[in-house]
Amino acid sequence: MEPKRITSPRNELIKHYKKLCKSSSERREKGLFVLEGLRVVTDLKGMVCPRILLVTEEALGKYAERLDEDFLRTCGEVIVIDRDIADDIALTETSQQVFAVCDAPVRSSPESYGGEPLVILDMIRDPGNMGTILRTADAMGISVGICGCCDELSPKVVRSAVGSLFRVRLYAGGFEEMLGAVHRKGIRTMAAVISRDAEVLGRVSLDNSAVVIGNEANGIPAEHTALCGGRLTIPMKGSINSLNAAMAAGLIMWELSGRK
Amino acid sequence: MEPKRITSPRNELIKHYKKLCKSSSERREKGLFVLEGLRVVTDLKGMVCPRILLVTEEALGKYAERLDEDFLRTCGEVIVIDRDIADDIALTETSQQVFAVCDAPVRSSPESYGGEPLVILDMIRDPGNMGTILRTADAMGISVGICGCCDELSPKVVRSAVGSLFRVRLYAGGFEEMLGAVHRKGIRTMAAVISRDAEVLGRVSLDNSAVVIGNEANGIPAEHTALCGGRLTIPMKGSINSLNAAMAAGLIMWELSGRK
Repeated sequence: MEPKRITSPRNELIKHYKKLCKSSSERREKGLFVLEGLRVVTDLKGMVCPRILLVTEEALGKYAERLDEDFLRTCGEVIVIDRDIADDIALTETSQQVFAVCDAPVRSSPESYGGEPLVILDMIRDPGNMGTILRTADAMGISVGICGCCDELSPKVVRSAVGSLFRVRLYAGGFEEMLGAVHRKGIRTMAAVISRDAEVLGRVSLDNSAVVIGNEANGIPAEHTALCGGRLTIPMKGSINSLNAAMAAGLIMWELSGRK
Repeated sequence: MEPKRITSPRNELIKHYKKLCKSSSERREKGLFVLEGLRVVTDLKGMVCPRILLVTEEALGKYAERLDEDFLRTCGEVIVIDRDIADDIALTETSQQVFAVCDAPVRSSPESYGGEPLVILDMIRDPGNMGTILRTADAMGISVGICGCCDELSPKVVRSAVGSLFRVRLYAGGFEEMLGAVHRKGIRTMAAVISRDAEVLGRVSLDNSAVVIGNEANGIPAEHTALCGGRLTIPMKGSINSLNAAMAAGLIMWELSGRK
């Protein structure tokens, strides 16, 4: 069967794609997000099938080995687009003229938390940090709670999270709701802070603990810290500005995972 | 004394500034680099004094509290520039119309290595990763060897390294020269690899060890790994793509620091 073709940048589907790139509420409402580049193939394999694949004739030829029949058959719809449309909708220089619209990965409710190792992100706002944290959580086998964070389906987060978005268990909800669910499982919550009198990472056991990581600029609000069962700090030899939020979260997740 | 003024974008000093932004060889040759934003004040304080401070009238007024007399007196030269020149030379939206030309921090030769905890970066190419690694090394009190990496004085690295560039001891040289100097101090070298049969981070002692971190895309060349005394891997539960180079380096530095 010949694939469908789009030649006009004013086509409704192209407008829909661009809206999904830009608008968090559009992504939520439709339960869809976009992915760009050959990572469409590598990141999604075995996890999710694109609803729509937009690809140029040129890319279909150039990447025929990866965009093979087997893969194309898994896509809901394959649509060939003109080169200038590809250039128009691309957000990166590495788009490779391959684009997909996919079903959003499932967000679990805090109530469904099962007591496994967890970090809770309280207002992480930088998409790069969010992506790095999701990717590291994936490596460490740790679940992630998100409260008031940037949209995990924004193209920037998706880009830096690689396929981890689909592998990490994500709980989304309000901070108090999240903490309540964690406490009900008998898990202790620790607020990651910069402080001389908090418990020290590497010296305190994190068995049965979940750790809260705060906003890049402002940390965790005092009223949220007050709700936690304890406070945790990373010992530092240099400046207190020397760890960014993603790195701090990474070291904490490494310890939460039992360093193995 | 009235400060000097520059109103023409074709002024030689402005050209010099722009060349320092762009050219690694220019920075090396002149032993200078550039820093942008009020971080000129915060990052450098007590470590290095700007040779030249370029600032608009507007910024001098707006940030008078931080760009105070005491600070301005430490600058070799303070030059007032027009707003359009500031817009022209700014690399970020947060330039705050404040720019400095500074002496490059000292790079030590591998021969001067003293046996302290060390990571060796073998062809790290992403400026963001380089900056994050320097920043984390600062926090952990670890020295950094750089072999064939991106320029640590490029504006992007300087931006993400914050003031750490001046606090971390940096050794620069060829890979074999670096390894030779480390081995002569009786320090074991470990190549960080993705492998099932390497020694495992968290289970092996890193006392008296230096760890080599490889290129983002290609890892450490086989001939470099062969020169190392051992191989080290980070245990992962998720995908092997789940840790980026900076995060892997961070976890390794945390263990190298003795987790304290």
